[in-house]
Amino acid sequence: MSSKLIEKSVIADLASRASGLDQPGGDQRLKTVANRLLGDLFTAIDDLDISMNEVWSAVAYLGQAARNNELGLIAPGIGLEHFLDLRLDEAERRAGLAGGTARTIEGPLYIAGAPLSKGTARLDDGSDKGEVVFMQGQVRDQNGKPVADAIVDVWHANTRGNYSHFDPQQAAYNLRRRIQTDAEGRYSFRSIMPSGYATPPGGSTEQLMFAFGRHGHRPAHIHFFVSAPGYRHLTTQINIEGDEYLFEDFAFGTRNDLIPPVARVSDPKVLAERQVQEPFASIDFDFVLMPQVEGVTDTVVERERVSA
Amino acid sequence: MSSKLIEKSVIADLASRASGLDQPGGDQRLKTVANRLLGDLFTAIDDLDISMNEVWSAVAYLGQAARNNELGLIAPGIGLEHFLDLRLDEAERRAGLAGGTARTIEGPLYIAGAPLSKGTARLDDGSDKGEVVFMQGQVRDQNGKPVADAIVDVWHANTRGNYSHFDPQQAAYNLRRRIQTDAEGRYSFRSIMPSGYATPPGGSTEQLMFAFGRHGHRPAHIHFFVSAPGYRHLTTQINIEGDEYLFEDFAFGTRNDLIPPVARVSDPKVLAERQVQEPFASIDFDFVLMPQVEGVTDTVVERERVSA
Repeated sequence: MSSKLIEKSVIADLASRASGLDQPGGDQRLKTVANRLLGDLFTAIDDLDISMNEVWSAVAYLGQAARNNELGLIAPGIGLEHFLDLRLDEAERRAGLAGGTARTIEGPLYIAGAPLSKGTARLDDGSDKGEVVFMQGQVRDQNGKPVADAIVDVWHANTRGNYSHFDPQQAAYNLRRRIQTDAEGRYSFRSIMPSGYATPPGGSTEQLMFAFGRHGHRPAHIHFFVSAPGYRHLTTQINIEGDEYLFEDFAFGTRNDLIPPVARVSDPKVLAERQVQEPFASIDFDFVLMPQVEGVTDTVVERERVSA
Repeated sequence: MSSKLIEKSVIADLASRASGLDQPGGDQRLKTVANRLLGDLFTAIDDLDISMNEVWSAVAYLGQAARNNELGLIAPGIGLEHFLDLRLDEAERRAGLAGGTARTIEGPLYIAGAPLSKGTARLDDGSDKGEVVFMQGQVRDQNGKPVADAIVDVWHANTRGNYSHFDPQQAAYNLRRRIQTDAEGRYSFRSIMPSGYATPPGGSTEQLMFAFGRHGHRPAHIHFFVSAPGYRHLTTQINIEGDEYLFEDFAFGTRNDLIPPVARVSDPKVLAERQVQEPFASIDFDFVLMPQVEGVTDTVVERERVSA
């Protein structure tokens, strides 16, 4: 497969000129990164004899994917978002910061500014007749000390796998809340069980996954940002056990520590207490935050997010 | 700068799973290419300690560039389009096909279907008071034999550096024509001298070039597709000598063999013959086409083009 038509020095020279390494101005960091990526790209094109038509078809694909607003889905689909998590895990491990709740990908569906509640909240507006779920737990530090006033920012899909804001059929901030932990670091919420979902049918991500012989399914999950002053911001999800795609998430988001058991509660007394008519699901999950430490990459990610 | 947090085998495994190499279906070629590019990308991220914020800022940049319709400008700006030319040159050289007119980049501004004339054409509609230019020459094969009925498909910018179709102020197909060579393989046209131009002010390409410490200028040039049955399709340009950016084309399109001398003609007899009032520019340029040969990459490029 190796064709190698072009001398390494020619590739190095073109990559260097294209990224402006021979120019005094500009952003040195960007120039360094671009020089590396362009040299890699040119070398791969030459090694694999990638044709003009293949390159232009990739450019057209990227353009369409961007216009479809799917770059934020493709990034996890190609493992890029997960890879960034692996690197952050390892950086923390080397800095002695292992031990907190495992992180996983954010995905492209977060909306800032969800209603804030103290201690507990109901996430659903009652219009989706999915299985009722209660989820509860504690936010603690690495020594087991409760973190009061932490913010548990939770968002998840409805039973059709759709997220409010992106789904015009849902009310604003449906299935999205920020919950402030109480003095014991406790949070709880009532909601409905989310469904898994797939990348948009006929869209760019699905097209790519199919071309890879893969699928675009995500198992059912619930997203969280957990934050508190003095602690490293945590971006994570829990998966709902039993989902057929549990270990086949197209976005590589599933982690073994993030699959809590789901209990089913049918005791009439408890149903009455909780004011529900039918058996419900119950999930216990505690979050462990690590302390902020100077010199270790911050975990607050700045990225383009949709805003409400 | 080298951080290398992640083991090579972890990168290889993730790239392989992400590109579906462990799945039976899909497009094997695409999977092979994606596996290589993802492995390279993950390795570069790790080697250069590229942060999450840097990655997401690149994703946002790409999305904006695509929505601005600038991917077709960025491809030449980063040397990618020129690199593909270098590879095709070398493939031809190895196949014994050296000797034709040098190719160079197409750029993103071609529009198919320009009016077809026999032998000669006037490209401008008289509304742009630029310097009149006559260009003429012959299309020949590698043995010097004239190629009759070749199509010289020519397009260029006006004196403001703008192209018809993309510029609403110009008539349809202004400065765009297809000219069929006569029995001696000759073509000629009258037009106005194009100006150089720069990437759109404030756009994604300009932003990238500035961040590289570069500029987004192209010297004045005239584009050509030259084709005839039995010959390899030629994509090329000539540059107008004397342009301040002649050897600093941001798109890497300038080639030494593609800078013909520009004569200035002021002989009143010739002016009268040509029906022009003022001295004009004259450019002689012959095109040499190479024969079609089985087994060598075709030079007809399929890419997303704007259509009129």
